[in-house]
Parts: sequence; C-alpha cells; structure tokens
Amino acid sequence: MPGQRRHAGAPATGQATVPEPGTARIAVDLLGGDHAPAVVVDGALRAIRADSAVQLILVGPMEAAGEVFAALDPADRARVSALGSQGSFRPMRVPKNWAESGVRAAVLAVAQGEADAVVSAGNTGATVTAAALGLGRWPAVRRPALAAVLPTATGRVVLIDVGATVDPDEQALTVIARLGAAYATVVHAVGEPRVGLLTIGTEEGKGDRLRRAMPALLERSGIKYVGLVEGNDVVTGRRADVVVTDGFTGNVLLKGLETAYALIGSPSGEPEARAAMLLGVGGTVVVCHGAAAGTDLAAGIALAADLHRRGAVHAIATLMSEPEVIDEQ
Amino acid sequence: MPGQRRHAGAPATGQATVPEPGTARIAVDLLGGDHAPAVVVDGALRAIRADSAVQLILVGPMEAAGEVFAALDPADRARVSALGSQGSFRPMRVPKNWAESGVRAAVLAVAQGEADAVVSAGNTGATVTAAALGLGRWPAVRRPALAAVLPTATGRVVLIDVGATVDPDEQALTVIARLGAAYATVVHAVGEPRVGLLTIGTEEGKGDRLRRAMPALLERSGIKYVGLVEGNDVVTGRRADVVVTDGFTGNVLLKGLETAYALIGSPSGEPEARAAMLLGVGGTVVVCHGAAAGTDLAAGIALAADLHRRGAVHAIATLMSEPEVIDEQ
Repeated sequence: MPGQRRHAGAPATGQATVPEPGTARIAVDLLGGDHAPAVVVDGALRAIRADSAVQLILVGPMEAAGEVFAALDPADRARVSALGSQGSFRPMRVPKNWAESGVRAAVLAVAQGEADAVVSAGNTGATVTAAALGLGRWPAVRRPALAAVLPTATGRVVLIDVGATVDPDEQALTVIARLGAAYATVVHAVGEPRVGLLTIGTEEGKGDRLRRAMPALLERSGIKYVGLVEGNDVVTGRRADVVVTDGFTGNVLLKGLETAYALIGSPSGEPEARAAMLLGVGGTVVVCHGAAAGTDLAAGIALAADLHRRGAVHAIATLMSEPEVIDEQ
Repeated sequence: MPGQRRHAGAPATGQATVPEPGTARIAVDLLGGDHAPAVVVDGALRAIRADSAVQLILVGPMEAAGEVFAALDPADRARVSALGSQGSFRPMRVPKNWAESGVRAAVLAVAQGEADAVVSAGNTGATVTAAALGLGRWPAVRRPALAAVLPTATGRVVLIDVGATVDPDEQALTVIARLGAAYATVVHAVGEPRVGLLTIGTEEGKGDRLRRAMPALLERSGIKYVGLVEGNDVVTGRRADVVVTDGFTGNVLLKGLETAYALIGSPSGEPEARAAMLLGVGGTVVVCHGAAAGTDLAAGIALAADLHRRGAVHAIATLMSEPEVIDEQ
C-alpha cells in the first residue's frame, strides 16, 4: 500500500535512493502516551497491515499485545512478538527491573540486536534518557535533538529541536543546527540544505540573548546557514529546508501548527506524520506525541522502518563526525 | 458597517458594555512596516470608510498622506490630517527632530492630546521604546507586553507577550500574566479569565528553567491560574482564556499560527485581526506586523479606536494597581 507509506520520512524528490523494503523490526512501547495502550494497539495493527516487511516487538502488558495478536489475520501473527513484565511471547535477555519501564526495555531490545528501532509516545525526557543510556551518544553530540518534519506549501521543512533539549547554550544549538542539516541531507536527500535560525525578526540584533549570539557561530559551522527566519517561514517553507531552535520554542510551535493543520488542513494537502526522530543516540528512536492517535503511532512506526532501511543513523552520525565541521567540545 | 467592526477587540459575549462609537483620533505611522507607505495608505482608506467616527492623523511623508487625501470622498477628508517632516496639514507642536521618526511623532501626538491612540507596523522595539518614553509606564509594570488575540474553535484566546519583552525573568512574566488577565477582563468582558502558562507538557517539572519556576508565583498573583498549557491549547482555546509566555516564544507561535490561518483558514471561520495592544504604557498603542497588509492596518486602527472608546488603558491600569495583587517591585 504505497499510499500509506507516504509519510514525512519518505523522500519527495526523485534524488533519494529509496531503500528496498527489507525487514524492519520495531520495538513499540505499549504504555507510552496519554491514551495508551489503546492507541498503540490501533497503531500497531495499522502498521502491520500497511507494510508486510515490518515486524513488531510489543513492549508492555501482555493483555495489550494479545489484543493486537487477536485482531490480526493468522498469516500476519508471525510478525508480532511481545515482551512484558509478566513474560514474553519470545524469550529475550531482559533484566527484570528493566522490563518495568516499557521504553527502557524497548531500547534494550535494540541494544541487544533484537530490534532495529524504538517507537514511543511516552514522556520525551524519559525516552531521551533511556536512549542515551541504553544506546550511547555520538561523540560530537553532548545533547540529543528531536527532528520533526512539517508539511509546507512548497515542500517540507525540518524543525529541530522539538523537545529533547529545552535550555541549549550556543554550542548545543550549533550542534542542533548541524544535526538538522545532516537529517535533511540523509532523509530528504537535499544536497546542501538551507538552514535558518528561528527568531522574531530578520533585522540584525533581533531576538533573545541566545539568538543574538548564534549567527556568528552558525556561519562557521560547516552548514549552509541562510540567516534569520520567523514563525511564518516554518509554514511557507520558502526560506529554509531546516529551521533551528531550542526544544522549548520548537515544541510549542510544533504543537500549535500540528493542531492547526489537524483542525483546518495541512498547507501541503497531505496528512502529516506526527512523529520525530531522536538524533544523537546510537540507534533509531522515533518519538510520537503524548496525545498521539493510532494513525500517528502507525506513522511513527513507518518512519522508524524507513529510517532503519536507509541506514539513517549511521549516515547522519558519519556526517556529524566529518572533520571539517566544528566540534562542540 | 457593523461587519467591518467585528475585530478581535470587540466583545463576543453580550456581557460587555460596548461603548458608543464616539470620535477616535488615531495617529498612524505612515512609514512603519515592510511595505510602507503603500499598505498604510490602503489601511487608512479602509479605516476611514469603515468607521465614520474615526479621525486619522497620518504621520510621515506628505506625499503618502496626500494619496489618502486624494482617494477619499470630499466629505471624508475633514477626518484626515497629516504631520510630517516637511510640514503638517494641521499645525502641531512637534520638535523638529521628533518628526524624523514617525512612531515617535505619533506617540507625541497622543502625549500632547492631539490623538487618542497610536498605530504602527514599524519595528516593535522602537515602538515600545517610543511609547514608554513618550507616554510613561504604569507604576507596577517595569517591562511592557504585547497582547495578541487569536481566533479558536471555541472563542478567542489572548496570547501575551508576543514580542515586547523577549527575555523576561520570573517577576516580569508574573506581571505579563496579570496584564493578560486584565486585558481579557476589560476588552473581552471575561469576568475571571482562566490564565494558563505556555510550556511543553502538562506534567509537573516540564519546561525550561523559567517555566519550572513560574507556577508557584502565578498561584499567588491574584489571577485565576489554571496551570500548564501547550501549543495546541492556543489553537483549540479549550483550557485558557489567556496564554502567558515570553515575547520570543509568543512571537514565534503567533507568526506561525497567523500564517497558517491566512493560508488555510482560521479555526473560528472569521478573519483575524493581526494587531496587538501594547500594555503597560500610558496611552493606547497598537502594533501591527512588519509584514502587515492594508486590511491588517485597518484592523489595527479599528482595534485602537475600540480600545480608546472603552477606556481600556485606564481600566486595565486600574486593575493592575489593585492592592491585593502582588507587585513586581
């Protein structure tokens, strides 16, 4: 069903090499999110039906995993396993205390090579911590960042960070900008993405203390820095492929625009993938909203599968380790 | 033309006493904004035609003021005067150097009693500075704030601050919250407005350093503080009548949502008044976007006239000086 695979992580241009739909084993946090596990069960069913090469490891209560199992065609059941505190459909090496926290167990499944990616709609801070501890961080990245993709009238824009790092300093925000550029290069196949700094006016000297300090740093960070952009540019997509901001401002803007688009329609006319990739940790981790619906979870699973298939984590980490770019240390 | 008077400053409920449409003399900065003076000329014409009790003092180049004059019916011309560096249609006591800056001259017209309000789409910082210097600040308000009104599916929400104070501390943000509550009480006739703090999650401890410190202060500030709200609540309007944030985050969110609503439609189905009232200075000052169109300038003039007619500055300042609320000093 190609229509269902058209999420934000898929390339819009013909430039990207779309990877073969090889097997992708996604560990899903059944208890993450305000409406868990019901919406996660719904999302898991949608994901299994939409992509015949996706396998799911459902992490959490066996009853919820059993609901997914029961609702599936028998032929699809072989692609679902479960892992929970009361046991596991498929035995795994999971320390007892880890299985208490769904997202930590899901991360461990990736760390142990049992899964290719994690998807959670749970608390972002808990997911970031679990991922950083369980999968390690890239050498150049002290503070991870969440990259969201928003539809615009002229294409897509990467908004980064949307909630992982709420109080970045200048060095951390410079790394966030480089992470966003690398994401657009690898996932959206934009050769030299235009990176803009989100602020409140395009004249010199506008913005708060952090923003006023940034242009000098971004100009020598090895990315194509195109200058100051504003909230409207995140909607029109005209001035930048990547919009850089702190996790507080990015989260507020993302939740505002996503809700507006859900109520009155997206500017691109396409449904939006309400899921974000966590950058800076040693594995594929996708975060959905706390308020995610089943379709959002399914979009998050599809994004995670796509990122795994295109080797996004390795490719972005490689771009971040290139010597010509300034290291934050 | 009552349809044209239905802007954000007008009451939606029947509770408010709508003032008689008495004369309102608005000083308009002809050179403020990215597309000045053309859009200001357009906005002035629309405002004059929409409200027969509005008078305009056009501040800036005589050629632009002349365009307004030439386009008007002779009967309407008596309601327009001009004030510029090359002279004035109507003599005013303006120091020579002040007339060089449109917004400073417009503020001076209010300070001298020649005008009732100022409208400018120029640089927000310059307008705030000119207003604070020329009109003075209220005793309890060290840092002014801009109150914007956004349409929602369930009514209107006041978003404050949207650009006057980009780096508030805890005390300044507490005052901003009180200003927002007073605005909703006076302008929207909401008896006890629900005030929410904009952050990135509704669990305790979410947000950046500033936000984590705020709930304790807001709970004892004399307003009806209803807790943490998120970007989506600014769109739905469900949880708060007033959403409080710093001028950086508020400006980014406002410009994002306004642009989204302009492209794909407002959640209320009504056109939006893209104009904000400056609170904390001793006169009626309305700020429009740098990117404002003629309709936005006309909405700003209508808002300024409405605020003047309902004595909003005096009423809000009185609420702010009430002894039971905590002073920021």
